[in-house]
Amino acid sequence: MARDWTPIPGGLTAPRGFLASGITAGLKPSGNPDLALLLAPEGAVCAGSFTTSLVRAACVDLCAERLKLSGGHARAVLTNSGQANACTGERGLADSLTATAALAERLGLEPEQVLICSTGVIGVPIPIDTLVAGLDPLVAALSAEGGEAAARAILTTDLVEKQISLEASLGGRLVRIGGMAKGSGMIHPDMATMLGYLSCDAAVPAETWQAMVRRAVARSFNAITVDGDTSTNDTFLAFAAGEPLAPEHWEALEQGVTAVAQHLARAIARDGEGATCLIEVEVKGCADDAGARTIARTVCGSSLVKCAIHGRDPNWGRIVAAAGRAGVPFDPAAVALWLGDQQLMQAGQPLPFDRSAASHYMKERVAGTYLGSDPASADTVAIRLVVGDGPGRGTAWGCDLSDQYVRINADYTT
Amino acid sequence: MARDWTPIPGGLTAPRGFLASGITAGLKPSGNPDLALLLAPEGAVCAGSFTTSLVRAACVDLCAERLKLSGGHARAVLTNSGQANACTGERGLADSLTATAALAERLGLEPEQVLICSTGVIGVPIPIDTLVAGLDPLVAALSAEGGEAAARAILTTDLVEKQISLEASLGGRLVRIGGMAKGSGMIHPDMATMLGYLSCDAAVPAETWQAMVRRAVARSFNAITVDGDTSTNDTFLAFAAGEPLAPEHWEALEQGVTAVAQHLARAIARDGEGATCLIEVEVKGCADDAGARTIARTVCGSSLVKCAIHGRDPNWGRIVAAAGRAGVPFDPAAVALWLGDQQLMQAGQPLPFDRSAASHYMKERVAGTYLGSDPASADTVAIRLVVGDGPGRGTAWGCDLSDQYVRINADYTT
Repeated sequence: MARDWTPIPGGLTAPRGFLASGITAGLKPSGNPDLALLLAPEGAVCAGSFTTSLVRAACVDLCAERLKLSGGHARAVLTNSGQANACTGERGLADSLTATAALAERLGLEPEQVLICSTGVIGVPIPIDTLVAGLDPLVAALSAEGGEAAARAILTTDLVEKQISLEASLGGRLVRIGGMAKGSGMIHPDMATMLGYLSCDAAVPAETWQAMVRRAVARSFNAITVDGDTSTNDTFLAFAAGEPLAPEHWEALEQGVTAVAQHLARAIARDGEGATCLIEVEVKGCADDAGARTIARTVCGSSLVKCAIHGRDPNWGRIVAAAGRAGVPFDPAAVALWLGDQQLMQAGQPLPFDRSAASHYMKERVAGTYLGSDPASADTVAIRLVVGDGPGRGTAWGCDLSDQYVRINADYTT
Repeated sequence: MARDWTPIPGGLTAPRGFLASGITAGLKPSGNPDLALLLAPEGAVCAGSFTTSLVRAACVDLCAERLKLSGGHARAVLTNSGQANACTGERGLADSLTATAALAERLGLEPEQVLICSTGVIGVPIPIDTLVAGLDPLVAALSAEGGEAAARAILTTDLVEKQISLEASLGGRLVRIGGMAKGSGMIHPDMATMLGYLSCDAAVPAETWQAMVRRAVARSFNAITVDGDTSTNDTFLAFAAGEPLAPEHWEALEQGVTAVAQHLARAIARDGEGATCLIEVEVKGCADDAGARTIARTVCGSSLVKCAIHGRDPNWGRIVAAAGRAGVPFDPAAVALWLGDQQLMQAGQPLPFDRSAASHYMKERVAGTYLGSDPASADTVAIRLVVGDGPGRGTAWGCDLSDQYVRINADYTT
């Protein structure tokens, strides 16, 4: 956790002035909550980060376009879970426009100030009449304690809710940041989406906020991998509104924003389908941070590394082999490797090590032991790789690959 | 199969003038054959293609350097299976030099004319005295019928041998091409390597041969994926020797070379660990062939696509989502998709389709039904994706992802 930032309750609505709600509108056959709303205070700036996939849902295009046209200003975001509204052609865009216009009218906003995120099955349109019928109760439910309900309503096949809020005193003033997310890989076929939201009750100029959020996303949501598959709907939206914060506190604010984003990202990796532990790979000694993150993410994404960790097998050869194919230059003769506190390689060559102690270390790291004390949690298998003496460092998170993952993803319709 | 090229027996030694052998030298604890030799006729040119991983074995560096210095001339290649000789520091290079020098002496060649490939466990040195003691019986066993023995001796955890030979009449002259390969993903931890060898009894200039082989590798070994992990030792070596072939037949020769390389590459994907079928993805309509191959390979490598096919689930959303993240530009509204003969998408939107017929099509495609009639074999799930009206086309091959894969790769030491 970044220094000076303390966990507080409240999630997305912990920051002052933010309202949220979550209800069951009837979009999901299960009857679980499926419609969520976040309303930011007047004057809020919003930074968005979206899937890089070419095949993306109409709602993603709509969010990106509205934020671009407004210079990063938005007030509300509606989230429907159950239907991803991707690969639905012109109807997909029409439904997104209908939903945001209907919500804007009820909130007294312009349609351009309202964003929409969808998650669920690809290729299935939203039952738009059902959604619109849910808007009145959704708006009526808005409250400063609504963060929890919203965090529940955005889930699809997630096993747990993912939210956090932090507080710090910056120049004698209490600043709060809240966040929620959903996503667990793709437990159900086509249920693919990672959604993340962040609220902050200190205002910074839109361009500063966008740059801050972009850097935080690079170190969090873009540093996790569950199965290497990018969704059609991945979206992260971060709102900041309130009294302006003096520039000398922006660096501290960014630490808090990064901490919230990293907590949510790790929570998604923890909830990866079939996962039995979190994997954290820290890489040091690259020419720059981006290279270090690329190596870390490649190791985290290696099926063979993931399988070895699932079997609690201290299989260092796979870690180094994955690093070697990351496309980032380094000297193999300079590589040093640690698993937990135990060093396995030095100067590019294996060291004798206690295989059973290394396996025992991994066996102790199991899901369900997470105590909320990121990052060195009891469910985390930590890998540290030094590839040279450059200043670049980066961390990535993932989860192990279990036979349960395969069964979950193979046995849907058959 | 390329037109005019007919399968014949003999494997690597089917082309005239090539000798091979394979013996048990005692490098593997199992007592299986573990040392192989290929001797090409005088004047042979050799084109090599190597792993792109930064972390690569000393033998790979040695092969690449010798081929570069000689302008693509080599006469022999020694293969030891059991130890990959990667991450073994200076000793790795010393052992490779010792082995090739000792073999060169016995063959009456210069050390620079001898290449070496190693496959097996990473980080473990070759028992070099055992290897050298095996060289006399290995040379004594050289024969024009030795292709089969060599193909057996290069295997590690492969379930089946992988070899082929083809013959065609080019300008009234019989030309033969042979090939063998090993690799099945990484069944055992650290047993990572894909090795491929090709022989041809028609001579073409070294630069022409290198370009021909480079194109064939792009369409074969670089178009397969089992688990996305590149090995420290991957190597493909292609020898051509004999009477010069007239330039008007080079195009036909390249078709044969490509057919041999594709057969071997598909055989590796078929033998992917835990695989129950071969997956073939053909992409058309890109701006160029390279882009089409990248999309095809991305779809083949998607864990979610692989799981869906393992479950015989006609889950088209995953295929299109994987294509969208390949990094190759196309218009999502132009996408059409077929599974076998059944069309699932048109103009970027789903078509109504018979889900049970599609599932039935995939259920019929199972490993063990391979009849040698590439490419439309009975064990192949065929996916066809059209992404526009460009001239680029490409095909990639992979296999499904089963819980057996995870168990194989997780349960090594525990």
